[in-house]
Amino acid sequence: MQLSKSNFQEKLNQVYDAIVIGGGAGGLSSGIYLQRYRLNSLIIDKGKARSFWMQELHNYLGLPPDTPGRVLLQRGKEHYDSLNGDFLNGFVEEVIDEGETFAVRVKVGRQNSIEAIFRAKYLIAASGIIDYLPPLDDMRNVYQYAGYNLHVCMVCDGYEMTDKKCGFFAGSEAAIEEMVFNLSWFTPYIIIFTHGVFSVSESLKTKLREHGYPLIETPIKQFLGQRHQMTGVELADGSVIELETGLISMGSRYHNTYLKEINLELKGGNLVTDKMCRTSHPRIFAIGDLKVGLNQVIIAAGDGALAATAIWREIRRVAGARPWVENLPI
Amino acid sequence: MQLSKSNFQEKLNQVYDAIVIGGGAGGLSSGIYLQRYRLNSLIIDKGKARSFWMQELHNYLGLPPDTPGRVLLQRGKEHYDSLNGDFLNGFVEEVIDEGETFAVRVKVGRQNSIEAIFRAKYLIAASGIIDYLPPLDDMRNVYQYAGYNLHVCMVCDGYEMTDKKCGFFAGSEAAIEEMVFNLSWFTPYIIIFTHGVFSVSESLKTKLREHGYPLIETPIKQFLGQRHQMTGVELADGSVIELETGLISMGSRYHNTYLKEINLELKGGNLVTDKMCRTSHPRIFAIGDLKVGLNQVIIAAGDGALAATAIWREIRRVAGARPWVENLPI
Repeated sequence: MQLSKSNFQEKLNQVYDAIVIGGGAGGLSSGIYLQRYRLNSLIIDKGKARSFWMQELHNYLGLPPDTPGRVLLQRGKEHYDSLNGDFLNGFVEEVIDEGETFAVRVKVGRQNSIEAIFRAKYLIAASGIIDYLPPLDDMRNVYQYAGYNLHVCMVCDGYEMTDKKCGFFAGSEAAIEEMVFNLSWFTPYIIIFTHGVFSVSESLKTKLREHGYPLIETPIKQFLGQRHQMTGVELADGSVIELETGLISMGSRYHNTYLKEINLELKGGNLVTDKMCRTSHPRIFAIGDLKVGLNQVIIAAGDGALAATAIWREIRRVAGARPWVENLPI
Repeated sequence: MQLSKSNFQEKLNQVYDAIVIGGGAGGLSSGIYLQRYRLNSLIIDKGKARSFWMQELHNYLGLPPDTPGRVLLQRGKEHYDSLNGDFLNGFVEEVIDEGETFAVRVKVGRQNSIEAIFRAKYLIAASGIIDYLPPLDDMRNVYQYAGYNLHVCMVCDGYEMTDKKCGFFAGSEAAIEEMVFNLSWFTPYIIIFTHGVFSVSESLKTKLREHGYPLIETPIKQFLGQRHQMTGVELADGSVIELETGLISMGSRYHNTYLKEINLELKGGNLVTDKMCRTSHPRIFAIGDLKVGLNQVIIAAGDGALAATAIWREIRRVAGARPWVENLPI
């Protein structure tokens, strides 16, 4: 059921089999599997999963290639609801390992918010990442194009950039080195923007020059375009650079601060997991973009199945077999 | 494009980036990713993927929970076609490792079939498994119910069996030991059928008796029911046992004989793979039910993304960066 400030009190005394933090593709898929394993689960979602911003999913098997990410999420939510899973819109502030259970402290409500503590035997961290966007004075200007033809994921949308004049919006020299030469697989017509927030070494400048990729260090005033189609960039000096597409690569933030008191094994900011998505804590699983691996919606959805199955197997083993008590005549 | 006997000749002289063996969920997902990575791929499908038989997918994020498996496959095929991937209906007989390439020998056409050899740099084995069904005199009687309420996958359909009177159709004593006590998580009302093809040890008989699960060793004459809903079993001695659902657990056959000349690492019949679905051969990937792991459609689809990405990364690295040759004024 949908929980809210007015009805969650009745859930505070129960111990869920699993609490899933994050209601994106991974979280919803794990919730569907958990409920179908006849376990009781609670998904806590702060809203706005990364896939929520995707205007068109182009690579998710089974969905027409222009399906918005929010449609996937809405269908997954309906599916989960139909299996009677609990769902709460809230922000997870902290997870405390109590030994047999986890206590999950949640802030519910944006105004007059209240705190509540839910408990579960297992935890699935599915809270993903959020991409940094170019910091302009008017961020609405960025939101107007991000997720349309101003992309954040080369693997997802490289195909759409094929041989187009592409602005590459970098957050660091490392981002340029790691991404630009791979991006050239899709298009060699790359113009790099630093927005003036970091400097580029002479050696990288030389390499970019050799490849013919212009480097623009003047800060950006605004993106140009209409109807969510970005057509270029206006710089602080008033000059205009026309573009057909863009890729933002300014890094991302992991939504995993609630786990900071539990020392989980990390690798470059990602949680290390085994083949069933189990972290270094035996009762905490990490799925989707939080874990080491490829950040793709279809993979996050598969991860949800793995984590839920691992949890079910353990709970089932502890419960043991159910005998046929009534000896019904056959 | 759709290849056939009349037009595949033109493809015999090219080397594909990857040939995908199997057009089920995993194969189609990998094909979609490969084409979106601007690689050229060929999917060779013998038809009738395991998911083709599933009348209702209940746990695939993004699809309504009564979507037939064949709808998923059809949409995936359309998606792949829209990306100009090549697709051939045929049966792969053998794969020969030629060093830089693989030669894939295919039998095309059921009548007047002809043989053809296609070549690729990489191979994705996505040909899955097929379940053994109870061997009755009239197999049409089995096909009438299999995939409806006569299930083959406990993980997929256990939820649908909840607290129902369930026939468990075993292929071996091991199948009973491995599955029945787990199945009782969903329903304890289990009646076990050996179809008279193997014997059960006294110790297992005792255990089953203690749990109250009847064991029927008389061969099955036929399944009873109507409109694809199985309602029971008629035995060879004419007696009838009513059932509400069933689970077939008679083992399965791996469609991987074409790989037998290449000694890949196996574990219990499944191909061993790394996190990117790479087998012990650096240019052969295995995805979905062929590999060690959980046999679920959503996981096979995610596997496809992993294998395609690993292949793309290698091909991209070998190709190197594309320079912006024309120095277009910006």
